[in-house]
This record gives sequence, C-alpha cells and structure tokens, in this order.
Amino acid sequence: MSQKSIIIAGGGLTGALAALMLARDGHRVSLYERRGDIRNAEIVHGRSINLAISTRGLTALDRVGLKEEVLEMAVPMRGRLMHGKDRSTTFQAYSSDPNENIYSISRGGLNRFLIEKAAAEENVELHFQHRCEEVDARAGVATFKNDENGETVEVSGDLLIGADGAYSAVRQNLMVGDLFDFSQEYLTHGYMELFLPAAEGGEFPIEKNALHIWPRGHFMMIALPNDDGSFTGTLFWPNKGDGAFSNLKDADQVKRYFAEWFPDVPDLIPDLEKQYLDANPSSLVTIRCRPWVVGKTVLVGDSAHAIVPFYGQGMNAGFEDVRILCEELESHPEDLEEALQSYQELRVENGNAIADLALANFHEMQDHVARPTFLLYKKFSNLLQKLFPGWYRSLYSMVSFSNTPYAEAIRIARSQDQAIRVVFPLMLMIIAVAIVWSLK
Amino acid sequence: MSQKSIIIAGGGLTGALAALMLARDGHRVSLYERRGDIRNAEIVHGRSINLAISTRGLTALDRVGLKEEVLEMAVPMRGRLMHGKDRSTTFQAYSSDPNENIYSISRGGLNRFLIEKAAAEENVELHFQHRCEEVDARAGVATFKNDENGETVEVSGDLLIGADGAYSAVRQNLMVGDLFDFSQEYLTHGYMELFLPAAEGGEFPIEKNALHIWPRGHFMMIALPNDDGSFTGTLFWPNKGDGAFSNLKDADQVKRYFAEWFPDVPDLIPDLEKQYLDANPSSLVTIRCRPWVVGKTVLVGDSAHAIVPFYGQGMNAGFEDVRILCEELESHPEDLEEALQSYQELRVENGNAIADLALANFHEMQDHVARPTFLLYKKFSNLLQKLFPGWYRSLYSMVSFSNTPYAEAIRIARSQDQAIRVVFPLMLMIIAVAIVWSLK
Repeated sequence: MSQKSIIIAGGGLTGALAALMLARDGHRVSLYERRGDIRNAEIVHGRSINLAISTRGLTALDRVGLKEEVLEMAVPMRGRLMHGKDRSTTFQAYSSDPNENIYSISRGGLNRFLIEKAAAEENVELHFQHRCEEVDARAGVATFKNDENGETVEVSGDLLIGADGAYSAVRQNLMVGDLFDFSQEYLTHGYMELFLPAAEGGEFPIEKNALHIWPRGHFMMIALPNDDGSFTGTLFWPNKGDGAFSNLKDADQVKRYFAEWFPDVPDLIPDLEKQYLDANPSSLVTIRCRPWVVGKTVLVGDSAHAIVPFYGQGMNAGFEDVRILCEELESHPEDLEEALQSYQELRVENGNAIADLALANFHEMQDHVARPTFLLYKKFSNLLQKLFPGWYRSLYSMVSFSNTPYAEAIRIARSQDQAIRVVFPLMLMIIAVAIVWSLK
Repeated sequence: MSQKSIIIAGGGLTGALAALMLARDGHRVSLYERRGDIRNAEIVHGRSINLAISTRGLTALDRVGLKEEVLEMAVPMRGRLMHGKDRSTTFQAYSSDPNENIYSISRGGLNRFLIEKAAAEENVELHFQHRCEEVDARAGVATFKNDENGETVEVSGDLLIGADGAYSAVRQNLMVGDLFDFSQEYLTHGYMELFLPAAEGGEFPIEKNALHIWPRGHFMMIALPNDDGSFTGTLFWPNKGDGAFSNLKDADQVKRYFAEWFPDVPDLIPDLEKQYLDANPSSLVTIRCRPWVVGKTVLVGDSAHAIVPFYGQGMNAGFEDVRILCEELESHPEDLEEALQSYQELRVENGNAIADLALANFHEMQDHVARPTFLLYKKFSNLLQKLFPGWYRSLYSMVSFSNTPYAEAIRIARSQDQAIRVVFPLMLMIIAVAIVWSLK
C-alpha cells in the first residue's frame, strides 16, 4: 500500500503544505483545522504577522513547484539594518553572495495560498472548525468536534499527522502515555506587534530590502517589510521588571519611552500610543519533546518543536519536516514504521538544534549586533566565505542558505571556529614575516 | 490573619505531613485525597514499597514531635552492601560516624501513621475519594469530585497546597496558564518490585542493617529491610533493548537470567519466577517546573519536583518543603504573598539540585559502587571527614545527614573537591619528604 490515507490535524502553514505535498505524492489526505476557512478570512494587507522564508522553506516549496510563485509574494531582505539610539543606522549583509537573501512574507497570505493549492488537489478533503478532542496514537484514530454543529466525528487513517502547533492537542494526547519526554520553557521576553504604514504613494518609509533592528541590549524592536510599502514591527520586551510592557500605562508614558529609546519610531507610526495601549503582548515559548512518532501518529512543525522566532526558522524548520517526512514515506513505500522511525531519527536532533540556535540568536539580535567587534567579526566571516567558499561557511549562512541539517551545521561551525583560532594567528604571523622580509 | 484556612490536594506522605504541621501551627486544614482512606486499607507487612528516611525527613517530623515514634517503625541502614556476580559481598559505610544512618521504612505504614496523627487534630478535616478536577490558582479555589456519590464540591481557602504527586492535577491546571516552565524526562530504566520473605523465625536472611545492591554496570537490583525480617527488592532494568524486563517471557528465561546475573537471589525468593511474570514494571520520571507559586496556590513535594529514587531523597525533600513552607508562613504571619515567594526562592533551586543528584546517583549505584577505585575514594572521603570534621564533609553526608540546602551542598562539595585536588598531592609530597628526611 504505497498510497496511504492520511489524517492531518492542523491547517496552518505546515499542515497545509503537508496536505498539498502528500496529495502530490499520491496519498489521500483529510485535513481538520480548528479555525474557520482562511479563504473566507479578511487578510488585511500588511496587518498580519510576517515571517522570513529562506532556503529550507523554499526547498520544500520547490518540491511542489511553488517556489517561484511564493517568491513573487515576498520582499527580499539582504541584511540587517540596525537603528541606533542616536538615529544612526548600520547595515550588515547576511551574505557576501548578493543572491543569498531571506524573504519577508505575510503569514496569513502564505497560509491562504497553501490552503488554496491544497484544496485544488483532487485527493484532498478540507474540514474547518474541527477541533481535535481525542487521539488514539497507536491506531491512528482521531476525534474532532465540529464547532458549527457540535457533532463529533471519529476518523482513522494509515497515518495521523499532528501539525496543530505549539499547543498541539495531538501532542497533548501523546503526553498522557508513558515515556514521553517533554519540556516547555518560556522566554523572559514577550512580543507586541505594531503596524508601520507605507509612505505616501506606497513608498517604503525606511529601507525596503532589509530586516530592521533597534537593538537596545536587553530589549529590542524589529520591523519586516510588506510588499505594499508598509512594515510589520515587533517589540521584544521583558515580561516583567525593568522595561516590561505593563510599565507603560498611558499615552504620555508610551510617547516618552519611545522618544528616549526608539527616537525614529514615532515618526513611522502616527498612532503609536493607541496601537501600543490597545495591544496585548504575547509570550514566547520553546517546546521540545520525544518521541515524535507513536504508533501511526507523527508530529511535524511547531507541535514537535516550537521555537522562538529569532533565527527566522520556525516555518522553515516545519516545512523541512514535511519535505523529509514525504521523502521517507517515498523511500519506504511498503514499510510505514520504518519510514516514521527514519523521519524521527533525522529530525529530533535537528529540532533541538534549531531551538538552541533561536534562543542564542535572541541575545545576538538584541545586543551583539550593536557592537563594533561583532560587526567586524561578521565582516571577517563574510570575507572568509568569499575567499574560501569551499572550506568556510558561516553558521548563519548554513542555517539560512543551505539544507544542511541544523545539528550538522552547528558541528561544522564549531570545527571551523577551532580551525580559525589556530589558523588566524598563524596567518598573521606569516603576513608579519613576509612584511619584515620585504622591508629588508 | 495569622490563622489561615488551608486546602490541601493530596493525602500522600507530603500532604498528610503538611496537614498535621499546619494544624499544629494553628491553621484550619481541609485535605482532599483521590484514593480511599488509607486507615481502612490493608497494608500487608513488608509487601509495600519502602523508603529511606534520613535527616531532612526526620527534622521535619521532629517539628511535630514524631521523630522518635517514626524511628521505632524503621530499620537503620548503616551502609551499602554490594553483592557481586560471584556471590562475594562488600560493605561500604555511609559515614564514619556510626550514628549517621538512613532508615528503611514502609511507605504505606508511614502514610497511615501520618494520616492518623492528622485526623487526631481538631482543626483538620479529611476527605477521601475526592479527585481534584479544576483549580483557580490565583483565587485559591479548587473543585473536587466525590468518587463515591459523583457530586462535585468547590472549596476555597486562604491557601491551596498542591501535594498531589508527580502527576499533580493542581500543577496541570497551572500549566494551562501562561509562563509556566515545565519538563518531564523519563529515565531509560524502569523498576519492578520483588518480595524477599523473612527466614524462619522472622530472621533476616541477609544483613539486616544495610541497603543491599547488586550493581551490574547497566542495571541493578536493590533490597531494603522491613522490620519483620523480610526485604523489599527492586529491579532497575532498561525499558527497552538489551536487558529489558520484557525480554524475559517465561519462568525458564527468568530462572536462567537470575542464575547468570544475580546468582544469590533465587535462594532468597522462592517464587521468583511467578513474582516476576505477574508484575508490571513501572517507569521513572524527573519532573521540574517553575513557578511553584501562582496566586494563592503553592506546590510541595513530587508535584513540584518528582525525582528518581536513587538518592533516597524524594520523601525527604517533600518533608523539607513542608517544614520550610510552615516556617515561612510563621515568619510572615500577615503577608501570605511574601511567605510564598520566600518559600519559592528557597526551594526551586534545591528541587532542581536534588533532581540532578538523584539522576547522577543512578550511575553511581548501578556501576561505580562495584569499582575498587570508587570504594577506595569513599574510604578516603570518610577518613577526611573523620580527620577534619569541621572542614570536610562528603556530598552524600551533607545530603543525607544534614539540612544544608541541596544546591548549597553541591557548591560546598565542588569547592572541597577543588581544594583536595590541590592539597592531596601536596600532602603526599610532604609525607614523602618527611620519610626521606627520617631515613637520612
């Protein structure tokens, strides 16, 4: 039975791509999503969260022939543009190769696009407003409650995929079973989104092709471009104590705080005070678990590994899960258990690796990027990559611009760093000797 | 309001002690326990799990004047007695001080004793067969379902204590809230209990005053004495793979495996094969979380920090939680929030520390104790403690025979170890010089 009947819980980005890719691979797919049909939702242009899509996400989209179409919806970002407290700006390219960009894209827009593509497949059934209530993981059976009419349906398949996000109901059911390792760890910081409108005539009010960062040591703001000239900004501030969101209680306090810490921002957000006071900050969590496979049930995306957003890899990692799951099902058409075990072996370590990297990048973004030594190091790293493209590749570059497994990328970066620590002083010595020699 | 009305969820060891101690401190206590009344349960002598109680547990019992009574129920264990594969035995004392023992005691017996003592208090109400269904942590409100008549009761207090064990319903409710860090991590090994009957005339068939260990590198058996001459044995074997419980499927396989690895055990357990095949192995989990305090709700014991049993500290740590919670409530009679925050600050770090120590001791018990170098090190450590009692104290000794906070004990042990690494070679040098000098 190489054609399988597959149940997917969750119709977010990862679930929608899974439905589409599995259908293209010849499987029959039924997808159940808790929320309403995103095709009927009004996605206000530029008002939704945006994401950075990079090589891993694009590789998965390429497997279903959608890479180019998606890139047309996205805005390339060539590097980070840092905004100082004194309104100065500094640009730092992501790569020495001008073709290596990450791309800002609307979460809602991409989700709708993928649901539309999945719906167009003959062997895909989509069910909205269906909440996952119970799972028999070993048997691949799930019960969903239809929120419209209150009825429950029990469905079963050869395979049940939990693509239902950080607070996954499928995972919750696995957790009740024995020997399920799990951790959830909240970040000290939460986030709040702010909308930066386009300038007159749809112009971009700040540099279009960059990810903007206002690094302030222990907190920051970022902004990603939308394709209509607007930006989606996000504040990452502490949940409590000094600099917490709740410390600013009225328009005046908001105004003064931004004037002090983000002096160029109020000009970009005319209704800043209102937006700030109307918004509710959200928390950020890292979730890890194991196993990802129990019987006929498998986890993909945030339900298996929710990570903080600071490496721009959440969706990319989820799309990579889907691609590798499909490849493993293809490689083992007659042995589902083998395919799932192989998927798990390939992915769990990498889910943990990108979770660690994302947490580490939080400190890089809010603090290190503002330091001259860090910028020098990045320039040196880009230079090395240009000079020795076959030998040296920065960790950022491997994570964002390659499909090298995350854990492998970390190992390579470590051994490169060790080599540089040996080679760099040697090189300096050789240069010094050469100079002395030439002056003789 | 120094007298508080307090709800306790859970009437196991920690919950029962909490009820008793809080009542003695003048509070009004209502305790709700999921199971039936342990006073009506038949506790088969020697057939229940036993525990090692040591200084921390005894200190807490002393606060309610029960230390001596409890010690009368217990069997002192002066050290570890290792059983080799060749039937040889080696004894290793826990301390150079013959008064420093740990005590084997019946879990069921002690639980019943504490429930009886709590029931005798005027301001304690006990409710059995009440299952915690919902908690409003901030408000200190809990809903319990009476399993006898199906009715639910909602109760509220100045303080709600979650003492409901590793799979705590109270903690489960906290977890749904925001910013609750949590992890559960299963050990590679599970456990199975075996009953070793007393010899004729109620004699102890093996050394009475010891904790017996059969260390086999990657798995082990232990046995603790009961006061009637019997022992409770526990196998700690892998959950899967080589040496897993499920590998032995019939009496013949059980017989041959024990003959190979535990040759002196079959003589001690006449119905070994039957016991083994009738039993279901259980898993072992480490649970950590934070916060332990949300609003008017606080966690104590396993619900806050479930640990593996290899340091014999699970109950001791829970009893210490109870003592320190009571002390903090006493120190801040008019400020509950301050008392709870102070309890949390004093305990969370220590909960994590004993969880780490218990995991580390697993490797010590099943492997290291069988090595001559380890035994030599332990002898050296005991000697140091005897020679420099004011300066040196082994980690085991601080954990088992003092009330030094666990994390502090680890720090002290580390700095002692560093000092020894410097002092020890110096001492050897001085001795060598002295010998050479004296031979001159």
